Amino acid sequence: MDKTREILMQLKSGDISIEAAESYFKRAPFEEMDYAKLDLHRGVRSGFPEVIFCQGKADEHLLRLYEKLVEADGCALGTRASEHQYELIKSAIEDVQYDPISRILKVARVQKEKAGRIAVCCAGTADVPVAEEAAQTAEYFGTNVERVYDVGVSGLHRLLSKVELLQSVNCVIAIAGMEGALASVIGGLVSVPVIAVPTSVGYGASFGGLSALLTMINSCANGIAVVNIDNGYGAGYMATQINRLAVS
Amino acid sequence: MDKTREILMQLKSGDISIEAAESYFKRAPFEEMDYAKLDLHRGVRSGFPEVIFCQGKADEHLLRLYEKLVEADGCALGTRASEHQYELIKSAIEDVQYDPISRILKVARVQKEKAGRIAVCCAGTADVPVAEEAAQTAEYFGTNVERVYDVGVSGLHRLLSKVELLQSVNCVIAIAGMEGALASVIGGLVSVPVIAVPTSVGYGASFGGLSALLTMINSCANGIAVVNIDNGYGAGYMATQINRLAVS
Amino acid sequence: MDKTREILMQLKSGDISIEAAESYFKRAPFEEMDYAKLDLHRGVRSGFPEVIFCQGKADEHLLRLYEKLVEADGCALGTRASEHQYELIKSAIEDVQYDPISRILKVARVQKEKAGRIAVCCAGTADVPVAEEAAQTAEYFGTNVERVYDVGVSGLHRLLSKVELLQSVNCVIAIAGMEGALASVIGGLVSVPVIAVPTSVGYGASFGGLSALLTMINSCANGIAVVNIDNGYGAGYMATQINRLAVS
Amino acid sequence: MDKTREILMQLKSGDISIEAAESYFKRAPFEEMDYAKLDLHRGVRSGFPEVIFCQGKADEHLLRLYEKLVEADGCALGTRASEHQYELIKSAIEDVQYDPISRILKVARVQKEKAGRIAVCCAGTADVPVAEEAAQTAEYFGTNVERVYDVGVSGLHRLLSKVELLQSVNCVIAIAGMEGALASVIGGLVSVPVIAVPTSVGYGASFGGLSALLTMINSCANGIAVVNIDNGYGAGYMATQINRLAVS
Amino acid sequence: MDKTREILMQLKSGDISIEAAESYFKRAPFEEMDYAKLDLHRGVRSGFPEVIFCQGKADEHLLRLYEKLVEADGCALGTRASEHQYELIKSAIEDVQYDPISRILKVARVQKEKAGRIAVCCAGTADVPVAEEAAQTAEYFGTNVERVYDVGVSGLHRLLSKVELLQSVNCVIAIAGMEGALASVIGGLVSVPVIAVPTSVGYGASFGGLSALLTMINSCANGIAVVNIDNGYGAGYMATQINRLAVS
Amino acid sequence: MDKTREILMQLKSGDISIEAAESYFKRAPFEEMDYAKLDLHRGVRSGFPEVIFCQGKADEHLLRLYEKLVEADGCALGTRASEHQYELIKSAIEDVQYDPISRILKVARVQKEKAGRIAVCCAGTADVPVAEEAAQTAEYFGTNVERVYDVGVSGLHRLLSKVELLQSVNCVIAIAGMEGALASVIGGLVSVPVIAVPTSVGYGASFGGLSALLTMINSCANGIAVVNIDNGYGAGYMATQINRLAVS
Amino acid sequence: MDKTREILMQLKSGDISIEAAESYFKRAPFEEMDYAKLDLHRGVRSGFPEVIFCQGKADEHLLRLYEKLVEADGCALGTRASEHQYELIKSAIEDVQYDPISRILKVARVQKEKAGRIAVCCAGTADVPVAEEAAQTAEYFGTNVERVYDVGVSGLHRLLSKVELLQSVNCVIAIAGMEGALASVIGGLVSVPVIAVPTSVGYGASFGGLSALLTMINSCANGIAVVNIDNGYGAGYMATQINRLAVS
Amino acid sequence: MDKTREILMQLKSGDISIEAAESYFKRAPFEEMDYAKLDLHRGVRSGFPEVIFCQGKADEHLLRLYEKLVEADGCALGTRASEHQYELIKSAIEDVQYDPISRILKVARVQKEKAGRIAVCCAGTADVPVAEEAAQTAEYFGTNVERVYDVGVSGLHRLLSKVELLQSVNCVIAIAGMEGALASVIGGLVSVPVIAVPTSVGYGASFGGLSALLTMINSCANGIAVVNIDNGYGAGYMATQINRLAVS
Repeated sequence: MDKTREILMQLKSGDISIEAAESYFKRAPFEEMDYAKLDLHRGVRSGFPEVIFCQGKADEHLLRLYEKLVEADGCALGTRASEHQYELIKSAIEDVQYDPISRILKVARVQKEKAGRIAVCCAGTADVPVAEEAAQTAEYFGTNVERVYDVGVSGLHRLLSKVELLQSVNCVIAIAGMEGALASVIGGLVSVPVIAVPTSVGYGASFGGLSALLTMINSCANGIAVVNIDNGYGAGYMATQINRLAVS
Repeated sequence: MDKTREILMQLKSGDISIEAAESYFKRAPFEEMDYAKLDLHRGVRSGFPEVIFCQGKADEHLLRLYEKLVEADGCALGTRASEHQYELIKSAIEDVQYDPISRILKVARVQKEKAGRIAVCCAGTADVPVAEEAAQTAEYFGTNVERVYDVGVSGLHRLLSKVELLQSVNCVIAIAGMEGALASVIGGLVSVPVIAVPTSVGYGASFGGLSALLTMINSCANGIAVVNIDNGYGAGYMATQINRLAVS
Repeated sequence: MDKTREILMQLKSGDISIEAAESYFKRAPFEEMDYAKLDLHRGVRSGFPEVIFCQGKADEHLLRLYEKLVEADGCALGTRASEHQYELIKSAIEDVQYDPISRILKVARVQKEKAGRIAVCCAGTADVPVAEEAAQTAEYFGTNVERVYDVGVSGLHRLLSKVELLQSVNCVIAIAGMEGALASVIGGLVSVPVIAVPTSVGYGASFGGLSALLTMINSCANGIAVVNIDNGYGAGYMATQINRLAVS
Repeated sequence: MDKTREILMQLKSGDISIEAAESYFKRAPFEEMDYAKLDLHRGVRSGFPEVIFCQGKADEHLLRLYEKLVEADGCALGTRASEHQYELIKSAIEDVQYDPISRILKVARVQKEKAGRIAVCCAGTADVPVAEEAAQTAEYFGTNVERVYDVGVSGLHRLLSKVELLQSVNCVIAIAGMEGALASVIGGLVSVPVIAVPTSVGYGASFGGLSALLTMINSCANGIAVVNIDNGYGAGYMATQINRLAVS
Repeated sequence: MDKTREILMQLKSGDISIEAAESYFKRAPFEEMDYAKLDLHRGVRSGFPEVIFCQGKADEHLLRLYEKLVEADGCALGTRASEHQYELIKSAIEDVQYDPISRILKVARVQKEKAGRIAVCCAGTADVPVAEEAAQTAEYFGTNVERVYDVGVSGLHRLLSKVELLQSVNCVIAIAGMEGALASVIGGLVSVPVIAVPTSVGYGASFGGLSALLTMINSCANGIAVVNIDNGYGAGYMATQINRLAVS
Repeated sequence: MDKTREILMQLKSGDISIEAAESYFKRAPFEEMDYAKLDLHRGVRSGFPEVIFCQGKADEHLLRLYEKLVEADGCALGTRASEHQYELIKSAIEDVQYDPISRILKVARVQKEKAGRIAVCCAGTADVPVAEEAAQTAEYFGTNVERVYDVGVSGLHRLLSKVELLQSVNCVIAIAGMEGALASVIGGLVSVPVIAVPTSVGYGASFGGLSALLTMINSCANGIAVVNIDNGYGAGYMATQINRLAVS
Repeated sequence: MDKTREILMQLKSGDISIEAAESYFKRAPFEEMDYAKLDLHRGVRSGFPEVIFCQGKADEHLLRLYEKLVEADGCALGTRASEHQYELIKSAIEDVQYDPISRILKVARVQKEKAGRIAVCCAGTADVPVAEEAAQTAEYFGTNVERVYDVGVSGLHRLLSKVELLQSVNCVIAIAGMEGALASVIGGLVSVPVIAVPTSVGYGASFGGLSALLTMINSCANGIAVVNIDNGYGAGYMATQINRLAVS
Repeated sequence: MDKTREILMQLKSGDISIEAAESYFKRAPFEEMDYAKLDLHRGVRSGFPEVIFCQGKADEHLLRLYEKLVEADGCALGTRASEHQYELIKSAIEDVQYDPISRILKVARVQKEKAGRIAVCCAGTADVPVAEEAAQTAEYFGTNVERVYDVGVSGLHRLLSKVELLQSVNCVIAIAGMEGALASVIGGLVSVPVIAVPTSVGYGASFGGLSALLTMINSCANGIAVVNIDNGYGAGYMATQINRLAVS
């Protein structure tokens, strides 16, 4: 960090030539930006190690990514992994774990301590894969997660019986397909931020999740913001950011 | 109705010629269809007198319609009427009544008896004009109406305090703009049919009611069907049909 | 139901302690709501036993659901079931019945009595699967069903020959893909409620049923409300609700 | 037409130089195409004099167009003209005629003979402006027009009473807003081509005519093709083309 | 046709009773409509024998349809047939012909005489299947067809070299995917009606033909109307209607 | 809160009858829910006093709301207020303040202490009204706000010069119309949650903010969630929720 | 530019202290980026002085912008200016020029020399305002412009007569509303880049220019790229970029 | 080219008859247009040999195209080729080269010299196939290409480190899926034209590239125009046109 001063002192003392110093400072603007300032936000220091979006990655490319991450950090998280990709990674990294529901492919040699608590709610059983992606992402980043599943608004008593739980966490993730009304109802029940995740669950005029997305964006309740359709990972990530602010 | 037999008997008895009878039966297929069979469904006998969609009607045309209906039935109902149209009709029909909220323009000289009961619910105060169009339409057609307004899902306790009332009527109309989640929640609370009316209330991604329409069409609750955006009249009409089946 | 009084009397008589009574009433708000009030609408008492949406359900999960329902009620209805799911359930419940057209997978040991009558109309032969889902759902819930198939508006005489039948039922379900004009035409011919079901039948600009959905939502006829694309089950359910109001 | 030969002979005879001939032939490809071949289709010879789309035209520009056309042909047709434009043209051309319903602004000094017959149908009274644009356009181009208005499918008997008339013309124009089902029903009743015109009449999910457009494009009836929303002029033009083929 | 008079005379003469006559006339409205008037438009008399939309039809159902039509008329036309359906029909009707490009499956034992001439144009080679469906449909119905393929507007000289041909037919079918500009350009070159067929050819923002559909509906040229995406059959049908008007 | 125990003890001691106790517990489920549990989340205790959406409110209704809130809390916040509404409220509440940019209409007699810090960024000057609605809402709720305006991505250096500031707050609100790329770029620069607000600023294919909404929902950066188009209030509310978690 | 070396030499020679050098290099990354590198692209050096989007700008803000630009450069260009804004600026800057067609509001005291040539084509007279915005923008930036207006594809001869001209410029701007086919046709006629501008000219299914936008994006011709609806300025800007590359 | 003069001179000199000359000039308009004027733009002379869109082409047709092109030019370029098509062509043309990433199938016997330089940037690794299609197309046409991949805006430092490179080329192609913000950011960094290519990379609300397309069309940066989703070829083509103007 005091590389700048170091160079200047070496120049002053004659240890390096003007040309060597000049060459350093010509490169500096970007190097410094890259590695010191800009990069700070996505590294180990920020507590959010890189995550791999497995879907569509070539085999050798994926394998290399896992090996690199595990070597560096002792852990690695991949989302939207296939059964085939599990077999692939397993052949090289024996202790990799695969959850076919969430499609998360994980190596977790280091035990992170968890702090704070969020809730992940979903409307129907068909939304569970997205909910698990959110929940396991948040857990991987060190957040405790309360799972509140199958609490769709067509049977309100299921949700109401969990109100006290929902009012006790730092952030709620509300996941629903079809008409996506869950987010609005939860938004009216809690005072913490609600991250809404529309899912592609549904048929007919659900248009692959567009209907649920519009419902959630138009929510009349306060304190709701929306991520992309089926983006459980994104919700788990942001909920963790919020949770960390609460526990720090 | 026994015109057919009458003609045949007159022919048999020689009161009319074959030609006269023939001419009658040549015309009959359509005449009979028009006035006997097809027309049955929209006349006084069906209990649904014609209703006038005022918006965009030319002055003289509108006036003539009101005068004709009032002369025939002693009553007339118009929807989406403007202040100007009220003045227009009032100049000719003194006892016409105008409600600037619902924009219903009505002559009601005959007191219809009411039977049965429906509920009209709406999410916010901005939905009241559509709700009143629905409620007053149903009342005009002889239905008792319970108004349950401002019970949007972001403050669930307001709606829950009315559950018993909603469970006691023959049909519920659920009206909401923005994210339109009200219909799903009510659908899960009652066992009678729910007619959902999306409204154009909202801004941004509500797209003039499209978002609420999609929400309602995708509802995960049973027993919900949807009418056009802002179509309070249509909901009041269908709720009356259902209510009549229940009380007859 | 008189559990409340029972507890109070036991307390009064000294059979239970204040603490025991207190513990009961602390739990009561939700328990009572769940099992007494809210749950009423979807139980045996409402006459609508739970229905299984088979599509996408895991094998073991589906099997358990069928076994539980059959054990409790002696009957079970599933929609959108695959051939494979039929084989699965059959291996455990021998008298399960599968209709590959409607994709309904049913156990019906108890013979329900039927009352009242609705009509299920569809425009073309390609709409029959949705029509059968609607018809068989209504029949399962105890409604008599008149099937009026292949009466699309491009050959109007087919529909017109059934007018008297359509005018004699308590509710009409109108099912059509492509341009979906059937609902409007039927709406003009009958005085009972019409539930319109757009189907995904069509190609090109039918956009998976969106075109038919818009047609039906915009219908100029009175007394029409619309359910989701291909949602035969939802239409059969609501038509039964209406029919029950008429026959009760 | 034998300009080519004429030039060649003049060259051969020495009446013109090679350069003069060369210059002619360099220009020829386009000139010949422009004035002989390509232009043929839109001139007096095709029987379709130019028509003015008045909307949005600047005053002086519009006036010049009318004066030019009237001077050349003794007649001129403009569509979508405003009251103001009528006043403008009237100040220069006294015998100009304006119809505020169809918004057609016409000079017709020459009496064209009419031949053949088409029908213009529309669903509701709100569609009449588009219907009149279609009808008056066809009449201006020399076609006899049968007007069959207010025959929407929600009251089928009105349309059915006109079936014989519709089966006797060379082409039917079917105009409807809202759900636009009229075109399909007419398509099933006649054996001549049907030109469907969706209108922007409606509200809510009619989306300015898009719903009616989709309905008509998806029509299950044979022999239907569709023009743009509210494009009465285009329908009247094409119906005239078809009618001319029939009477020639 | 003089059944009416016959019945009346029989009644008058005492050959039948009043009841017998009455029963006849009660039935008459619909019978007469069905079999005499309404059915006229789609039968042998209209020259348009029924056509089979093969796609999605069950094997036994399809086979029965072909056998029935061939028995009655000695010919049968099916569209969107698969290779499998060809084998199926061939096993029962040996002289059935299948064209894998247009997917038309045809029996044509009777040689219809052809009259009149239309042109079928398409923009690219990928549009040929739709073009052939249109062309072969028109030919089956007795129309001579000029094929003008691969004349997309990005190489205008190809189209311009065919202008004289296009100006000599009774109707032009313009088929194009991607941006669908062909219809507008042809519309400006000919004076006969142009039926535009958008195709689903394209990628990206062609949205399965929606882009081409919008282009064609918005065409600034006169005399163009549009059928559904990929609907070659519909275009061939309507072009035949127009052609027949021209040659009759 | 110990009302339950109190009642039970009174019963036990004979102070009240079984009937009185019973009547209390029958009412309890909803009363308790309404006033104790459910209502907690939106009251003074949650620190979020009610906010008034002024747009479209009737004059007398709005006035009453302001008077009620000011009387109760000594402060009131309204959004989307018009100049006219300002005059209206001012006539009754002299110290009301109106900001024509953000259209916020505020009474703030009580000085709330502020804690924590968020940043509100917007892309262009046309986005400032939405940005100010967000900023002033957050300030009203007790949050310190850093305004970083006019930092659209087409001139990246403006945004980059503020990176350190953005990395030092608890939450960033990113507001942009047109292509809405700002949210993604900020998302890549900071490690706190980013709330993205699409605005209706733009023309052509911006479709009233839909384009920016889609951009933001699809953001490839982590830690971004989206609220409705132009919903500055919603963003300010949620940012305050997050900020409070951080400072509590 | 050799500031870096200068500082290093001063340090080496003892003219400045290590602290002074250090302070310089700490600030450098952003300063250098802002003022030297990033800003280069939009300044006088790039030849593209800033342009003002007048629409929606507050009076005082707009006036200040014009005054600042004119003072600095002796010239200023504003787009989408209203008559009122013209009056406003004129009161302060007498030689400002306003073109009500293109709505360009310009001060041009310095005569820029023009180099190179582009063509601006538009389909109809209603597209001229967009065409003029494009043409005058390009001219302001120093490009010669050939105007080729009213050459829509429905009258192809008009466009074909200009082919040689179009083939002689460095870039063609193709502007069209409605179906937007002009771009594809021009794309097939020239070998230079074509910038396509969809306009909002049209009605019905033109959807404010969306239809033309899709047409142009899907163009089957090579060498076409598209800017936003009605964005004449953007097309003129990019055409100038291309033209400069050609003439430099 | 001087064929016209030659014929005229031969006629003058008597070498040919008037008839022979006449016959030549009668044919000339189209021949000349086809082969001299119109065809000029797409031939060897324009430097853009024909390119084959392989996808969906029949085997024999594709083979013939390759053989014809290779025979004529010694080279051939095909896009969107499958592995199978590679095998097919390889069996006939041994030195054909296939790149499974870009899916380009190429014969390149003649070594074209390259001139000028463009940059191809893409946001993520999933965009590389489109980027390579663009890059290899440009290279095939004789352009030097700088590849700048994986520089998405969520990690801005990666892009910023390439600014100098991007500012040194004649044209930049910016390729991105998901939210597509890359184009705007690059547009703000360079002064040469930017061709934006939206890709179908993404999920949920990316709607197959529509979201990225809208982002790019609405870009607030100057000098950006957009081609179809995934249209790397089109971008490479147009970038080459621009590059040629710069180097010629």
